Amino acid sequence: MKELDVGAFWRLLKPEVVAWAVAEHEGERSICPLGWTMRTSATPPMVAISVAPSRFTHGLIAGAGAFVLAYPGRELAQATAYCGSHSGSDVDKFAETGVTALPARQVAAPIIAECVANLECRVVERFTTGDHSIFVGEVVAAWAQEDPGKLLCLVDESAGYETVLKDERFRFGVVRG
Amino acid sequence: MKELDVGAFWRLLKPEVVAWAVAEHEGERSICPLGWTMRTSATPPMVAISVAPSRFTHGLIAGAGAFVLAYPGRELAQATAYCGSHSGSDVDKFAETGVTALPARQVAAPIIAECVANLECRVVERFTTGDHSIFVGEVVAAWAQEDPGKLLCLVDESAGYETVLKDERFRFGVVRG
Repeated sequence: MKELDVGAFWRLLKPEVVAWAVAEHEGERSICPLGWTMRTSATPPMVAISVAPSRFTHGLIAGAGAFVLAYPGRELAQATAYCGSHSGSDVDKFAETGVTALPARQVAAPIIAECVANLECRVVERFTTGDHSIFVGEVVAAWAQEDPGKLLCLVDESAGYETVLKDERFRFGVVRG
Repeated sequence: MKELDVGAFWRLLKPEVVAWAVAEHEGERSICPLGWTMRTSATPPMVAISVAPSRFTHGLIAGAGAFVLAYPGRELAQATAYCGSHSGSDVDKFAETGVTALPARQVAAPIIAECVANLECRVVERFTTGDHSIFVGEVVAAWAQEDPGKLLCLVDESAGYETVLKDERFRFGVVRG
């Protein structure tokens, strides 16, 4: 056991499932890809997500008091990279990526037709944690494809993953078979 | 896209990396396996963990104001199952699993010699979220094996995983190769 730099430590923490925070408020909507999400209550069902305040989507979630957590599959790796490297204040991420917004049942934000699964969440708490905010969302509806595919993850070079898209900063992939 | 029961939804969310919350307070120490963890700040580095208040380890973390987040590998699947199905109020999980507690550098809780990696964390915030608490920990030291192995995960039947241990309720595995 050797001590190491915390930055180096995070590179060990693979796989990390990717999720999109989707929010809509006062006629504006956007998509923010996240790796930092977790469940945080079984009854009632809740999820927690960490979002940087600088993100355009952060303001939409705070304003609307709700978000959709949408889980992309392999077909949306490029869209995930696009949404992670552009701001919703500059571009319409729905138009640019070509994803289909479907009306949610309980919240203003849309669900994403092409995603493997979608959770509709109402914000019940918001906390500041270092350089991010935690939004705690109560899950008020859940959706999935009829035949759900693999979830897109941040991965390493292991043989059990199929790499879908990579650059210098990240490697997206799915678990094989 | 079809609506589904939230309980059914969670079964889609694989892989989920397993981590152990390790805590020590006033001469008592224990280990609580968790699936619900995430990073929540880059600078300063922070993690958030969701722990049920009924867990013995919950009281130790709250009392000590610190915890270690230790990441087991494939060799600790059985120990993870044991720690998840017994209470530290009844048994000494270190003695029962045979894991080696090493002194941490910054916190009272020990690091685990057999784990792939360990994070020492000081609690900076605690929130109640439904039937769990979120402890937000600032990472004050990080450790890893010289040659870190694969992280133990909750997995499904996909070919890219090697199943290490399963019963009716869970399947632990690692990503192949």
